[in-house]
Amino acid sequence: MTPDRATLSDSRRPDVAQPEPAADALRQHLDGRWADVRAIARGLSDRELFQPAIGLNQVEQRARVLRQLNALCAEGLTAYGFPVEYGGKGDIGASITAFDMLAMGDLSLLVKVGVQFGLFGGAVLHLGTERHHREYLADIGAGRLLGCFAMTEHGHGSDVAELRTTATFDPATDEFVIHTPEDDARKEYIGNAAQDARMAAVFAQLVTAGESHGVHCFLVPIRDQDGAVLPGVRIADCGPKAGLNGVDNGQLWFEDVRIPRGNLLDRYAQVAADGGYRTEIENSTKRFFTMLGTLIQGRVSVAGAAASATKVALTITTRYAERRTQFQAPGRDGEVVLMDYLTHQRKLLPALARSYALHFAQSRLVETLHELFTETVSSDGRAEYRQGDDPRRRELEARAAGVKAAATWHATRTIQLCREACGGAGYLSENRLADLKADTDVFTTFEGDNTVLMQLVAKELLTSYRDHFGELDVLGTIRFVAGQAVGSVLERTAARGLITRLVNAAGRDDQAAWTDRGWHISLFDYREKHLLETLARRLRRAANAPDPFAVFNACQDHLLATAQAHVDRITLEAFVAGIQACPDPASKALLEKVCDLFVLSNLEADRAWFIEHGRLSAARTKLLPGVVNELCGQLRPHALTLVNAFGIPEPMLDVPILR
Amino acid sequence: MTPDRATLSDSRRPDVAQPEPAADALRQHLDGRWADVRAIARGLSDRELFQPAIGLNQVEQRARVLRQLNALCAEGLTAYGFPVEYGGKGDIGASITAFDMLAMGDLSLLVKVGVQFGLFGGAVLHLGTERHHREYLADIGAGRLLGCFAMTEHGHGSDVAELRTTATFDPATDEFVIHTPEDDARKEYIGNAAQDARMAAVFAQLVTAGESHGVHCFLVPIRDQDGAVLPGVRIADCGPKAGLNGVDNGQLWFEDVRIPRGNLLDRYAQVAADGGYRTEIENSTKRFFTMLGTLIQGRVSVAGAAASATKVALTITTRYAERRTQFQAPGRDGEVVLMDYLTHQRKLLPALARSYALHFAQSRLVETLHELFTETVSSDGRAEYRQGDDPRRRELEARAAGVKAAATWHATRTIQLCREACGGAGYLSENRLADLKADTDVFTTFEGDNTVLMQLVAKELLTSYRDHFGELDVLGTIRFVAGQAVGSVLERTAARGLITRLVNAAGRDDQAAWTDRGWHISLFDYREKHLLETLARRLRRAANAPDPFAVFNACQDHLLATAQAHVDRITLEAFVAGIQACPDPASKALLEKVCDLFVLSNLEADRAWFIEHGRLSAARTKLLPGVVNELCGQLRPHALTLVNAFGIPEPMLDVPILR
Repeated sequence: MTPDRATLSDSRRPDVAQPEPAADALRQHLDGRWADVRAIARGLSDRELFQPAIGLNQVEQRARVLRQLNALCAEGLTAYGFPVEYGGKGDIGASITAFDMLAMGDLSLLVKVGVQFGLFGGAVLHLGTERHHREYLADIGAGRLLGCFAMTEHGHGSDVAELRTTATFDPATDEFVIHTPEDDARKEYIGNAAQDARMAAVFAQLVTAGESHGVHCFLVPIRDQDGAVLPGVRIADCGPKAGLNGVDNGQLWFEDVRIPRGNLLDRYAQVAADGGYRTEIENSTKRFFTMLGTLIQGRVSVAGAAASATKVALTITTRYAERRTQFQAPGRDGEVVLMDYLTHQRKLLPALARSYALHFAQSRLVETLHELFTETVSSDGRAEYRQGDDPRRRELEARAAGVKAAATWHATRTIQLCREACGGAGYLSENRLADLKADTDVFTTFEGDNTVLMQLVAKELLTSYRDHFGELDVLGTIRFVAGQAVGSVLERTAARGLITRLVNAAGRDDQAAWTDRGWHISLFDYREKHLLETLARRLRRAANAPDPFAVFNACQDHLLATAQAHVDRITLEAFVAGIQACPDPASKALLEKVCDLFVLSNLEADRAWFIEHGRLSAARTKLLPGVVNELCGQLRPHALTLVNAFGIPEPMLDVPILR
Repeated sequence: MTPDRATLSDSRRPDVAQPEPAADALRQHLDGRWADVRAIARGLSDRELFQPAIGLNQVEQRARVLRQLNALCAEGLTAYGFPVEYGGKGDIGASITAFDMLAMGDLSLLVKVGVQFGLFGGAVLHLGTERHHREYLADIGAGRLLGCFAMTEHGHGSDVAELRTTATFDPATDEFVIHTPEDDARKEYIGNAAQDARMAAVFAQLVTAGESHGVHCFLVPIRDQDGAVLPGVRIADCGPKAGLNGVDNGQLWFEDVRIPRGNLLDRYAQVAADGGYRTEIENSTKRFFTMLGTLIQGRVSVAGAAASATKVALTITTRYAERRTQFQAPGRDGEVVLMDYLTHQRKLLPALARSYALHFAQSRLVETLHELFTETVSSDGRAEYRQGDDPRRRELEARAAGVKAAATWHATRTIQLCREACGGAGYLSENRLADLKADTDVFTTFEGDNTVLMQLVAKELLTSYRDHFGELDVLGTIRFVAGQAVGSVLERTAARGLITRLVNAAGRDDQAAWTDRGWHISLFDYREKHLLETLARRLRRAANAPDPFAVFNACQDHLLATAQAHVDRITLEAFVAGIQACPDPASKALLEKVCDLFVLSNLEADRAWFIEHGRLSAARTKLLPGVVNELCGQLRPHALTLVNAFGIPEPMLDVPILR
């Protein structure tokens, strides 16, 4: 029997049409572990200073953002992630949660905060040692020392290892000489640099005794107490940008700028007074990635911020669609509310479902990051990140890269469709969607270009795959894979037991109910695994090819599809775990429906692949568009509950189209 | 035999790898019939006044745009479409071509010009009579009388027939009284209204002798010679917008504003001094759509402008991708140029191919519009638009709606991907992509919301379908359709003969060469026809349904898919005709490849549908991603030629990332 649309009514689950869960109960579940931090952040939005402002020019925007930053510092709401002895709370999870709440307001403030505490402060915290912490962290956390993070160069953005700026040690004066050897090596798009930063964390090639040891990070003063640019430093303003004009992005050049030897952030490598270089990580590539890896928090933070901004856009757009009418319906009284149109449901509801899915993926990511950063305690009694190539750390970094790419692409697409779904009103700045779109647009680029990040995800999958299967012959591999009920390569989410049970109970492809969660998981899992195995096989052939780049290049779309399938699978599993953990039955039932829509709209979009790979019949996939329509109809009455549960503070939603 | 990738090398066509066509030859072909107008417009770009300016505030932007507008007027470069006796050239095609060239520069100027000459001037020209022409057209064309087009209301945008503003005739004073009865009826987003317009073309419900006759257009003075707002008129500024901040959009309220009876634009309906209402079109719906239809030029113009802005973005991005390097390739010297990455080709080249396809669809649309507007000559010797429900006119209007939606959605998506493909540099205003994105974003909304326009396309398809097949029973219909080699419903393009020949020579589905154009056309044609027939069948069932809206609503995604399939088919046919007409063999060979990519990337994206409907086997579609990759590789060496052939003036491309 081929299942038809009727099976969408799943007898195993209560019909969500009743009871309607309270948005508050759902919100409490979404708020999760750091709900207290969310409550504090929501409180801020009552104050005019933190409400969105529109129509300011660049000068006014920058000034306002600086005032906001100072106000946050004055109240101790920044730097939750710093150690307690330097004014923080030693709570990484709280720090990322606070950051994602900021994204419901002015995104320039968000980015300014991210640069100051996450990137600049994070470099000092994670790449520096106790000496640096004592000297700088309290001032950084309190906003007394504003800094910037000077990594990207004009000539090299994604390819950080190839940066050209040099830091050459001069034993005669016990100093490093920071230098920009060519114009392409200028530091580019550096937030906080054009106006406010007094110090820069500069990434440069460390050279000592004539030998280069790769990229390291150095603290370089760039302005004096009065804000005057220091000798040898040149700073230019990047000028107007598509958005985020409250952030002072700039370019930096260094001409033989001398800094004390102690300004090397020397957590992973040290230079002695005689110029001798020491490191605990001999392999320079490994050392480099270990250093970069500590900055993972920035990537996770951007994912959270993108998710929050998307929720704001969806809330505004859904509320508008519930009140805006257009066209008289034949055979009905009055005009039809926008949200009643299938086309409108089709635009908004799958995006809303994906936002829910990514919310749980992000929550899981933050919790894992928090655990890995706090369970290891360093020699000075400070919690610190797991080191080197710990598999859990590698897995976390791949997950962070994938969720960052997914959440920021989702933001770009969804805020765009929200703008369009609000018509002309969506184009006016006063209704916030214009700024949300413009401000978040660069999220797909910064903290790692998304395409490059997805390649990183695929690379990690391939590495794990090789670790597991490298020594097996092809037949052995197939047996090994077939022997696993759910045989994915990377670490499983917390709901491993539940997921295994669901998959074991999954119906057959040709007759599983549309809402059979085990079947959903097994399809997502199969897609990832198949793409990964075939990718590995293609790349193995490249090993002996005359032009390995050509082979690698020809696989790039396959590689990105693999990474995408992986992110979809871990997102689904996080969603399943999040539903399982929900204590409120009505909320839980509604989340199940939302998860159905997340899965089925994903399958609908990718159904050609499942047919081509023999997992779904064309007769079955042909029904998918109708099934998704029906699900949209079932969720439509709950749309308002679903957006209200995001808990966006009302002052952030006080826009003219909703008045 | 199932064809494999090898068949991509098509022996029937010369290999485009040699010779490389001259970009100039290709450009000449793209320039088409109004090449002289394009040359004049290109000349303007040498002047600083017409070059893009960044970082201006709203006041400065508005002032600059007004200066630009006045400069255009002073040189007689506006209003090509106006009759010769009023300072124009009576050349609609030239006027649309000039407009699309303007879109290569400052898009605020474009929109200001569109409002003044296309919408305001167009209303006077097409809805007014000789009296209005004599009184106003010369002043409008010369920019001495600036006006606005006050159609959209806050409460009713897409549903124009339901506008609430009233124009009540008062025979005692021989005047109409223009009135805004409720705040929702305020005129909204009206370009030129906030600052510059002295007169508004106001759409309002005409009431005379207590009877309402539906929406008509009236000329209402709103400011005096000195720019002071007239009594009874209230104007507010819409404030900052996502883009187009050089255009002064405003809101308008009227409180019993009296205008002479003669200010009714009375081409299609007249009111006598005694209040008697006369019209040549008795049916009020038909009259309303006849009036609206004359404004088709705006829609066609926006499509052209969107296409031009997209070309600018693609040119900047492709040139950047040809010079920007990133990452060292294994086994190669030096870093890899971005354009050599498959991921980058996959982003840019299908979008470029679609831009080419839409270029030819747009050219064909402009030519048809020009013909329909000039072949009929009105009683006063003036060329005028075909009237009423002439099938060619109906077809043109559907085509305009579809191409407008396709071109503006393509612009939004493509400029977005260009921004991302240029990384951080794409986010800086100085590199133009930020403004191109923000300025064009509302194109999907204005001159008709795209979703509504696509519904209009589907409605016209259904109407034609009923006209052709209404009287046939189901079996008869099938025979009729099967009997046609290529049986589409609407008028064919100029290349009808060629297309029939290609389709007749098409290979079988399971063995046609990937580049078999006849096969391409037959697939696009089948998709459209099948969607249309099944849609008609579903809607027929709605006729007797208890809740017709519910049935109609459930079909909305089907309806939009039908419209999309139609637009894709006519776009492909226009592309085929455009290639046929190309005199330069090398250009022609290259265009064939571009057309292949347009078709095959479209099939790749929609391949599930073709499998589900039995036209393509999964074994065959599985090869499509590889075929598209290979095509991208073949076109990659020609990327620069293809963008250079758009003929964007160099000053418009003089951005820092290309210096």
